[in-house]
Amino acid sequence: MKKIKNIKHVTAKAENGTCKKTEIKIGDITVGKDFLVIAGPCSVESEEQIMTVAKAVKDAGVNMLRGSVYKLGTSPYSFQGLRKVELQYLSKAGMETRLPIITEVLDPRDIYLISEYADAFQIRANNMQNYSLLVEVGKVKKPVLLKRGMNATIKEWLNCAEYIMNAGNPNVILCECGVQTTDTYTRTPLNLSAVTVAKRLTHLPVIVDPSHATDCVELIRPMTLSSIMAGCDGVIIEVHPSTCDAFSDIEQKLTPDQFKDLMGDIRETLTFRDNLNEHYKKKN
Amino acid sequence: MKKIKNIKHVTAKAENGTCKKTEIKIGDITVGKDFLVIAGPCSVESEEQIMTVAKAVKDAGVNMLRGSVYKLGTSPYSFQGLRKVELQYLSKAGMETRLPIITEVLDPRDIYLISEYADAFQIRANNMQNYSLLVEVGKVKKPVLLKRGMNATIKEWLNCAEYIMNAGNPNVILCECGVQTTDTYTRTPLNLSAVTVAKRLTHLPVIVDPSHATDCVELIRPMTLSSIMAGCDGVIIEVHPSTCDAFSDIEQKLTPDQFKDLMGDIRETLTFRDNLNEHYKKKN
Amino acid sequence: MKKIKNIKHVTAKAENGTCKKTEIKIGDITVGKDFLVIAGPCSVESEEQIMTVAKAVKDAGVNMLRGSVYKLGTSPYSFQGLRKVELQYLSKAGMETRLPIITEVLDPRDIYLISEYADAFQIRANNMQNYSLLVEVGKVKKPVLLKRGMNATIKEWLNCAEYIMNAGNPNVILCECGVQTTDTYTRTPLNLSAVTVAKRLTHLPVIVDPSHATDCVELIRPMTLSSIMAGCDGVIIEVHPSTCDAFSDIEQKLTPDQFKDLMGDIRETLTFRDNLNEHYKKKN
Amino acid sequence: MKKIKNIKHVTAKAENGTCKKTEIKIGDITVGKDFLVIAGPCSVESEEQIMTVAKAVKDAGVNMLRGSVYKLGTSPYSFQGLRKVELQYLSKAGMETRLPIITEVLDPRDIYLISEYADAFQIRANNMQNYSLLVEVGKVKKPVLLKRGMNATIKEWLNCAEYIMNAGNPNVILCECGVQTTDTYTRTPLNLSAVTVAKRLTHLPVIVDPSHATDCVELIRPMTLSSIMAGCDGVIIEVHPSTCDAFSDIEQKLTPDQFKDLMGDIRETLTFRDNLNEHYKKKN
Repeated sequence: MKKIKNIKHVTAKAENGTCKKTEIKIGDITVGKDFLVIAGPCSVESEEQIMTVAKAVKDAGVNMLRGSVYKLGTSPYSFQGLRKVELQYLSKAGMETRLPIITEVLDPRDIYLISEYADAFQIRANNMQNYSLLVEVGKVKKPVLLKRGMNATIKEWLNCAEYIMNAGNPNVILCECGVQTTDTYTRTPLNLSAVTVAKRLTHLPVIVDPSHATDCVELIRPMTLSSIMAGCDGVIIEVHPSTCDAFSDIEQKLTPDQFKDLMGDIRETLTFRDNLNEHYKKKN
Repeated sequence: MKKIKNIKHVTAKAENGTCKKTEIKIGDITVGKDFLVIAGPCSVESEEQIMTVAKAVKDAGVNMLRGSVYKLGTSPYSFQGLRKVELQYLSKAGMETRLPIITEVLDPRDIYLISEYADAFQIRANNMQNYSLLVEVGKVKKPVLLKRGMNATIKEWLNCAEYIMNAGNPNVILCECGVQTTDTYTRTPLNLSAVTVAKRLTHLPVIVDPSHATDCVELIRPMTLSSIMAGCDGVIIEVHPSTCDAFSDIEQKLTPDQFKDLMGDIRETLTFRDNLNEHYKKKN
Repeated sequence: MKKIKNIKHVTAKAENGTCKKTEIKIGDITVGKDFLVIAGPCSVESEEQIMTVAKAVKDAGVNMLRGSVYKLGTSPYSFQGLRKVELQYLSKAGMETRLPIITEVLDPRDIYLISEYADAFQIRANNMQNYSLLVEVGKVKKPVLLKRGMNATIKEWLNCAEYIMNAGNPNVILCECGVQTTDTYTRTPLNLSAVTVAKRLTHLPVIVDPSHATDCVELIRPMTLSSIMAGCDGVIIEVHPSTCDAFSDIEQKLTPDQFKDLMGDIRETLTFRDNLNEHYKKKN
Repeated sequence: MKKIKNIKHVTAKAENGTCKKTEIKIGDITVGKDFLVIAGPCSVESEEQIMTVAKAVKDAGVNMLRGSVYKLGTSPYSFQGLRKVELQYLSKAGMETRLPIITEVLDPRDIYLISEYADAFQIRANNMQNYSLLVEVGKVKKPVLLKRGMNATIKEWLNCAEYIMNAGNPNVILCECGVQTTDTYTRTPLNLSAVTVAKRLTHLPVIVDPSHATDCVELIRPMTLSSIMAGCDGVIIEVHPSTCDAFSDIEQKLTPDQFKDLMGDIRETLTFRDNLNEHYKKKN
């Protein structure tokens, strides 16, 4: 596999055979060693909504609660900056369930406020090359989930991780969330070989976002289990309360019950994968 | 999942709830019910080469032997039409190992000659929309492996299957072999959600080609196991004799020993998947 | 500009400074020296339709009549092989107006029949890499219009020209007809820098297809005039009789009157371009 | 041409037939009415460099001076935030030559400082969907040059313009700078039909960046003249002092002499286009 030039933080492994994989302590687990499952709604809409989901996903056994506190879309009319009240709801739900929380950051000016509440930052795909944002999250030490841009090469993605790490923050988690194609059945189909490639080239943990990539509830289970076999270190999944009014895209999100079933399958597949790989390593 | 309009052969299932999945008898197995593993070299180069590989992959437990008998590339200087001698080597290797054989067809004029020797036809990705070729393989009854064009939508792919079926041949096997992206680490990364989507929309078997898609030996094992969890009905894998001169792209192909190991992992993953899915169906 | 390796027929210029540009005699003009305008309907539908269009475009001053005699689409239900009667209509219209004719070839088996009637062959974008077809049109001497595949690189395109020329036919005309993008306002937006690049790298004439690329009547005029300034050697434009029933996509094609106006603008823009370039060459 | 829903600021024209085109006063000209030529180096490197270029492009007749004051690349090691000294050099060069200046903004926190010096803001292609930046430049009234993301649809591009205008700044200039394709001869080939489409759908001025798109000095002249025939309202071109050390990518930029020649051709082509179009409108 081609080496990547001029990237020293991301690929320390390649230059130093003894260097171990990046491990990031989040809540009760160590990302990079333990499998990370992040779940929650796309957006935090109300205190009740986030609390309901938080309890459900905690019960199902996740390690982290997600929820965006920006209202965003391609249309400007729905745009609002950071919504502080929703950030507080998310924080409260995290504390009550003892789940660490992760939320998106879009604007370098919001980092310090978000830092007061959140345990980790998420950089969305179309901000992957927002260099001033990368440098700014590099100045805090909290973990950063860096999604791959839907047309970015693996090399460009790793260079963006290097931006964050070079600014002083080694706690980068890469996240594969799909590539732009001509197809219309999935929003951005996952490139699962990117997971394997990123894990060979770097010492960083790599997780997968099957919800955003597939945008279709029927595809989340098979793509989650496929991702595990591709070697990922975790997944991030959208879960919506079943009691919601469901006027919009409810069928693109898992209900808490569907998610609970999926968690069981995730655990079994992980156990299977780890046994299979251990056996494989012994032979090779 | 959006229905596809004006495609009646490919989606008979959708219009008739009782219609069962397409099952295609090839050699000892029934594709669509049993898992299909096709293996062999990219090109048939010599009698010794194809015989060596045929014996190795038979021992490892495959169901079908592959090998192209065209010499083809993007450069015209290597172009030769159908090479009949190589077709006979392939046929002989198939007979000796009792493996059915599959080979590529590029030109409608070659179909009848190939039919004399081969048990199935393969249509490569950049011929997916070669309509006169599709109609012509539709006039014979032998199974046709139809690869998805690297920029084709799922709908265009299924329309091409419809071309073949509408001409009279119901024995179509779809094959996912990757999409064109900006990345340079894999040739055409697999879109595994296309496997799941094609299986929901149609009654046809869907297999995956991890060798051509990844073009990298390190990625074949993880992508094969991922494909199984995505629900595929088989895989097609390049295997090259370890005794070859290896001047070119040997590290992009599995050796017989590597392939034998992979076959073990394929079997275990299949058993695991089928148990997990059975349990899942009972609950849902 | 990067040279292209292992392509000797297409780039003879590069290896031999004195070699002059390819010039192809078609009807009254010499393509590569004189500007080529090909016009006609997308498909030949009836004797009356093609005759009406032929007379109109002849009056407007075109050099060649086009019309497809295959009925083709992404759906198999409209597929018919070569329609000989329509080929004869096209031929008759060409003879009556003294216009040479060009028509698409899809199947290597049709080449000899088409040769009896047509003066030139057209290879559509999604057949660009149909190598057995390329080799077969390379065996006749009639001019071949080779469209660039909508995702093909310039290098792949030139390699396909090399296939034809290496088989013995030097009369290749390259045709830019757009690239696949995410946009939905044009079918495949033209890459006009590909025209300039292909003219620098090769000695072949390069023409442009604004009708197929834009699929929108409002864009044909500006894109035609832009193409001229990019240095193209001709254009191929769809013209539909104004008397047609217009139930389908009439607004995507020029009427004979619109086309006549466009021909005037083409002539003026050509004169302007040639004067400007002559002045530019004197200074540089 | 399909209308765009829910975009009222950008397409006021479509809803109100009498609404006239956006006109933006910059220095001596009115953009949208007069043709805008912006020129200057990619980056401001020294006082001498920007002053030399400023004088040269002023002599050649441009309307605006460009120059980036960020040091940016895909690699983090060259990253520096806004460089205030270089911003002052640019400002000084603008004042001395009486040219308004435009410079890139990457970070919402830099807008107010840049505002003190610059006459207009440029948003680079990979920041097109940086919504918090768009909203922030929408709060000042200075003109904003909004480049289209290299994989963005026209609709997404116009939605980003809507973000800026909805925040209160009507002075948006759209800039086409190419699309991502598989080709390697040009960085991002121009989609010139996007210029025509954007001008039909909106009342905003649309300019073209042939330098960044082609990344090749041989292509800048033909692409500039093509862009004019496609109907653009201006161009932005990189010019580098001929006295520079030229160790890197000098052959991708025009020298002042080359640029002066190009300005002559731009003027002649504009006069030709405007006469041709006036004649065309009279007939239609």
